[in-house]
Amino acid sequence: MKISRPRGTRDFLPENTRLRRFVENRMRDVVSRWGYSEIITPTFENLELFTLKSGEGVTGEIYNFSDKGDRELALRPELTAPVMRMYVNEMQATPRPLKLFYFENCFRYERPQKGRFREFWQFGVETIGSSRPDADAEVIALAEEMIESVGIKGDLHVGHLGIIRHILEELEPEQQTKIMRLVDKKDDTGLDDYLEQINASIELRNELFELVSITGDDAIEKARQIVGDIEELQIFEELTQILDAYNVEYSVDFGIARGLDYYTGMVFEIYASNLGAQNQICGGGSYQLIQLFGGGDVPSTGFGLGFDRIMEICELEPEQKKEVVLVATDDTRLDAIGIARELRRKVPVYLDIMKRNFKGQLSHANNIGARYVVIVGKREMEAGKVTLKDMESGEQHQLTVEEAREHILKSGM
Amino acid sequence: MKISRPRGTRDFLPENTRLRRFVENRMRDVVSRWGYSEIITPTFENLELFTLKSGEGVTGEIYNFSDKGDRELALRPELTAPVMRMYVNEMQATPRPLKLFYFENCFRYERPQKGRFREFWQFGVETIGSSRPDADAEVIALAEEMIESVGIKGDLHVGHLGIIRHILEELEPEQQTKIMRLVDKKDDTGLDDYLEQINASIELRNELFELVSITGDDAIEKARQIVGDIEELQIFEELTQILDAYNVEYSVDFGIARGLDYYTGMVFEIYASNLGAQNQICGGGSYQLIQLFGGGDVPSTGFGLGFDRIMEICELEPEQKKEVVLVATDDTRLDAIGIARELRRKVPVYLDIMKRNFKGQLSHANNIGARYVVIVGKREMEAGKVTLKDMESGEQHQLTVEEAREHILKSGM
Repeated sequence: MKISRPRGTRDFLPENTRLRRFVENRMRDVVSRWGYSEIITPTFENLELFTLKSGEGVTGEIYNFSDKGDRELALRPELTAPVMRMYVNEMQATPRPLKLFYFENCFRYERPQKGRFREFWQFGVETIGSSRPDADAEVIALAEEMIESVGIKGDLHVGHLGIIRHILEELEPEQQTKIMRLVDKKDDTGLDDYLEQINASIELRNELFELVSITGDDAIEKARQIVGDIEELQIFEELTQILDAYNVEYSVDFGIARGLDYYTGMVFEIYASNLGAQNQICGGGSYQLIQLFGGGDVPSTGFGLGFDRIMEICELEPEQKKEVVLVATDDTRLDAIGIARELRRKVPVYLDIMKRNFKGQLSHANNIGARYVVIVGKREMEAGKVTLKDMESGEQHQLTVEEAREHILKSGM
Repeated sequence: MKISRPRGTRDFLPENTRLRRFVENRMRDVVSRWGYSEIITPTFENLELFTLKSGEGVTGEIYNFSDKGDRELALRPELTAPVMRMYVNEMQATPRPLKLFYFENCFRYERPQKGRFREFWQFGVETIGSSRPDADAEVIALAEEMIESVGIKGDLHVGHLGIIRHILEELEPEQQTKIMRLVDKKDDTGLDDYLEQINASIELRNELFELVSITGDDAIEKARQIVGDIEELQIFEELTQILDAYNVEYSVDFGIARGLDYYTGMVFEIYASNLGAQNQICGGGSYQLIQLFGGGDVPSTGFGLGFDRIMEICELEPEQKKEVVLVATDDTRLDAIGIARELRRKVPVYLDIMKRNFKGQLSHANNIGARYVVIVGKREMEAGKVTLKDMESGEQHQLTVEEAREHILKSGM
């Protein structure tokens, strides 16, 4: 009886896993050099954590279930809420700001489609305790460097929700939310229809469409002409100055709304040009969730990188896995184990476990692309030697085990 | 509203996560040098994968749930079945033997207790395609080296189910299973009662009790006196000879039954002395699952290491996380960003994101245990220099950024 994999999930075979770990480690290296610390939260949480953050509607896209004790649980759809929950439960006494990162799997129940999976991975960062544009700029620059570190050039858009909200402040909160979602979807027709439906003033309509279409180096000046010299714009201007100090390239984009209610100020998205429609590889911003989850009034800012989309376009190629294959004869089989032990202190060694004959072992070494073969023959063994064969050049030498190990190490393995 | 973590799960804070990653990486290093390749399978599988392997009874201990499409899914309680399922679906054409490893989380629904969690981690290894004692010996020796690599001395017991099954072969399969479970629990009274209940011969009873209590260097000889020179015992003897070549210390123990039906031959367990009652840290053996899951007649052997139990007794201490903290003044704040970029090519740098004043930044550097502080003052900047302060010795020097970086690197950071 053949059992299939659940729909929308994946198996990662050795080659693919190696590439994923390679990319993951590049990114880990960057966040570590920026002084961020890793945390791990549970794979499932109480469902209310996510409904509290995103509304009851979110359950339609979540893997939620009752456990045997009738608790409503959910496989995490994202990690910002869990990290904030963890902060409230366990880290409120830690000196702030905190600079945290995670690399974990998330789950969503939706129709599987190209590049969208039901189990997917996020590499994310959250700083807790600073509402300064310095914090916002640091996470944006960090996201950019992480993406660059794996050879991807992203198209970074940065905005600030305070500007658009300023225009909408006379409307009801639900109207504002609805408009933000339409802006986020770039649904201009829908937006126009909705503004008419709620009888929004022509002035508001014009300001809104002007604001979300601002581009260019003088974007802040243009915004100032629309909304005036409001505090949010001053803060945003300071953010852009810090981004310039980071040498980060970005476009100002007041049309980024992130489609979520909990962002408070800065928002940003990074797109990859060669991913088709689903081309967003990173999204983030500043937000307030800690109070909602029962903690103090502590601001945060962070982002999540879509690791699977990054893997789709990443062209890095880690060095091929190379091994030393030990080839023994029937009467040196046990001696080969001791030699493997010596070599393994420094290099990866593959040992036969099939009791294949000499020829069969050599042929398997060829099949798996061995870099070196170490032949353990009875007569050589008695002289304290082995034969080291370089599978690239075809050269072979009789050496002591130690000499063989040094030779292999010098080749860069 | 304060939201708690689900019962039996854990949050891992930065210090703890760092230690876990450190131990994980030690073990990764070992399996890689033994020529094993990593794979990743989905966090949930179709429930039938686990009921097929372990019987319907297993659902009592599993997190199983229906998804919105009414599929019966289960959070994986272990990884052997998923790896074999993956092999059948995707790797049957790969040259055998395969040497695979995984490091993943698993889930079980049971009363949380000391050292037992509802989400827990397993580091495991499976070889696919060899029924030879060479394969069995390799995985046992590998398990031992992984445990040793993190500073733990394990007590290794090795047995073979073929010997005990030989004694029981006249009984019904269900009777054999029941007896194996009682042997596994070391429940001598229950075993005695059950043997009486099924009217087992006094000869069988005596042989069984003798066999499971065999100890000492001549264990194989003693077993031979009970069961005769059967093939399984010859194979087991060959296994012990190979283990000797690996320099592995072990006790022969024919009372290991692993409480599971799917093991076929060699079985082993490793115990830690300082863990109390739940002291098993590793278990494994040779088994046949591929045919059950719709593949060919391919033998496998492997083990799972209980990573959480290992973390409980592991006394390794990774070097403390050390950072360089940049301290800027109000008018060098943006310059500090460029200096951070230079330093971060090689060393971890923490940058202020609170716009703290000079004194506040210095005091935060102290709070987080910075190894070095780099002071970016306006006048020094103009001379192309910074002040490097060694927080251990208290010494400080005016240096160029490059000199500062070299100095820091020389300190071993």
